[in-house]
Amino acid sequence: MQLSPTLELAMNLIRRRSVTPDDADCQALMMQHLEPLGFKGESMRFGDVDNLWARRGTEGPVLAFAGHTDVVPTGPEKNWSIAPFEPTIRDGYLYGRGAADMKGSLAAFVTACERFVAQHPDHKGSIALLITSDEEGPALDGTVKVVETLEKRNEKIDWCLIGEPSSTHQVGDVIKNGRRGSLHGYLTVHGIQGHVAYPHLAENPVHTAAPALDALAKTEWDQGNEFFPATTFQITKVDAGTGSNVIPGELTVHFNFRYCTENTAESLQQRVIDILDQHKLKYDLQWHLSGEPFLTERGSLVDAASKGIKAVTGRETELSTSGGTSDGRFIAPTGAQVVELGPVNATIHKTDECVKAEDLDTLSAIYEEMLVRLLVE
Amino acid sequence: MQLSPTLELAMNLIRRRSVTPDDADCQALMMQHLEPLGFKGESMRFGDVDNLWARRGTEGPVLAFAGHTDVVPTGPEKNWSIAPFEPTIRDGYLYGRGAADMKGSLAAFVTACERFVAQHPDHKGSIALLITSDEEGPALDGTVKVVETLEKRNEKIDWCLIGEPSSTHQVGDVIKNGRRGSLHGYLTVHGIQGHVAYPHLAENPVHTAAPALDALAKTEWDQGNEFFPATTFQITKVDAGTGSNVIPGELTVHFNFRYCTENTAESLQQRVIDILDQHKLKYDLQWHLSGEPFLTERGSLVDAASKGIKAVTGRETELSTSGGTSDGRFIAPTGAQVVELGPVNATIHKTDECVKAEDLDTLSAIYEEMLVRLLVE
Ligand SMILES: [Zn+2]
Ligand SMILES: [Zn+2]
Repeated sequence: MQLSPTLELAMNLIRRRSVTPDDADCQALMMQHLEPLGFKGESMRFGDVDNLWARRGTEGPVLAFAGHTDVVPTGPEKNWSIAPFEPTIRDGYLYGRGAADMKGSLAAFVTACERFVAQHPDHKGSIALLITSDEEGPALDGTVKVVETLEKRNEKIDWCLIGEPSSTHQVGDVIKNGRRGSLHGYLTVHGIQGHVAYPHLAENPVHTAAPALDALAKTEWDQGNEFFPATTFQITKVDAGTGSNVIPGELTVHFNFRYCTENTAESLQQRVIDILDQHKLKYDLQWHLSGEPFLTERGSLVDAASKGIKAVTGRETELSTSGGTSDGRFIAPTGAQVVELGPVNATIHKTDECVKAEDLDTLSAIYEEMLVRLLVE
Repeated sequence: MQLSPTLELAMNLIRRRSVTPDDADCQALMMQHLEPLGFKGESMRFGDVDNLWARRGTEGPVLAFAGHTDVVPTGPEKNWSIAPFEPTIRDGYLYGRGAADMKGSLAAFVTACERFVAQHPDHKGSIALLITSDEEGPALDGTVKVVETLEKRNEKIDWCLIGEPSSTHQVGDVIKNGRRGSLHGYLTVHGIQGHVAYPHLAENPVHTAAPALDALAKTEWDQGNEFFPATTFQITKVDAGTGSNVIPGELTVHFNFRYCTENTAESLQQRVIDILDQHKLKYDLQWHLSGEPFLTERGSLVDAASKGIKAVTGRETELSTSGGTSDGRFIAPTGAQVVELGPVNATIHKTDECVKAEDLDTLSAIYEEMLVRLLVE
């Protein structure tokens, strides 16, 4: 069986055991393809994370493909029907860790560049790739650091195409033109520890906090809007006491907001504080803003993606802002338009991760269409 | 300084490092005093717990003194102003681990027997001692096992005098004529684990349980009665989730009732179930009945105690059922009258545990008065 260049590159990437934060030379392999095309590669290592910024051209506008070489752990390999780092094509599907998230996309974009540059060596603007080996991990030394570096030297991304697996049933049926924000809260409710036989000498923080937690869980934070589903609040951890006969002195509560553009981190923080204060709790409260919500409305990038999908597959694509966070949260604040377009995400992070083999060629053709629409026409 | 026999015996008991469940030969020392008086001692060892049943006489009624030789750990000895197992009299107080809880009481009862038997060698009924080395610990192989053994051979206790430190400010100001019951609940609330970005696919057990926990915490279970304070409910532990971005699949809640005779374990269990069901929770619920409430109303034993206190100290004693559990929970169900009378409890289980030295002689005199009132008059 003759493999397409995209499948062959995807399989070579999967063979590299690049579990977060190890790049396992995936970026070097990509540069072997890109350098002959005229890309200048720049390795940016921060901490134990390898990042690659590769660019063809010096002018704007800049279309940057953003992606990651790292994959999540396989879990017990015995639960897989293949060895997860030995890519295998079976019944038309390519199996292997990272096949869908997102070594298939990396390969599809590299081969799209090969065909595009061969046909349009003098395209306008620049093509770039922003690749990290820590998207699945803490993401502290990855895309965010590269973006900081680019901003410092005034290197601007106009259009950002992220290869995350956005599709639901068929490649291109859904693209993400935004993501909700993610805000973490770390609450400690203070009481007074004591013995259960003498509750009048104690103050049980679980008792005092229960109605406040109920109020937080029942609050409608907003109703979403035309682009976003409604903001959601979830408690992810509660912890107090050791059992036996002791009234706990403290209650720890962690929670997370996924929030849309109808709220800001500040508005949510204030509303939480108001609810806690209404219930007269004594507490400490820390916050971590994991990412602000972002939205790319219809415009040149969304159009290029949806028209490219239509041209290659005949499909009408759906715009979505649902799901978890992505590295788009780091790129969107620079003012770039951001769209996520990648293969079907049904098996990502699971055992027997796979992608329809022909979908990678389809995806590569769509990426090529986008390059043409943005950098030639 | 000439020590009274009670102080001397108390100090010899304190010198033995009998941290639960180690008796450290305290019971043997007591028997050295009791055997010459005509007591027959019977060692009952269960597991790693030493118990002593000593009895003088074969007839009823039986007045049994119940107590424990074990003490709670000292904590860091450097926090004590004396070495905790080197009893010291300073400013009229006897310091040492167990001085108040309850080696002082053990000594006071033994010396009361010495004086009483010398004066009334032919007293009616029997005097007994039920001593364990595991009152402060799990209490599984202590008093409860001795009571089972006695019941099997139809050996009955009519009056049980427990030497626990019942007094608040002055020896004899408070006696306990009952205790609340203690009922533990172990609740697991089931939800559906999921990712915070997809709450519609999950069910957060912390969210579903919060209003039920609030309802449990706010419920008035009863108003108490003339003998008991109201039943109290306290959550002693909550645990769910690990934080990060995961909606927990399960919530664990431990709680405890201290309950009076206006409720039973069964009535409380049913009411908890009703509240959980009203909130439509999916849950498992386990129970452990640590002790049923018991009450000894005014009668021969309470009278002997309060008149004995009045005779020796001039004080009116107050009847109380407050505080934690005691081994009385194991003895009361046999039908015995049970009263707790011991020294001031201000320093028990603390560093620099102490008792007013003269209080032990006062206590011994009260115990002797009770022996006279119950077994002579
Ligand atoms: Zn990914
Ligand atoms: Zn005690």
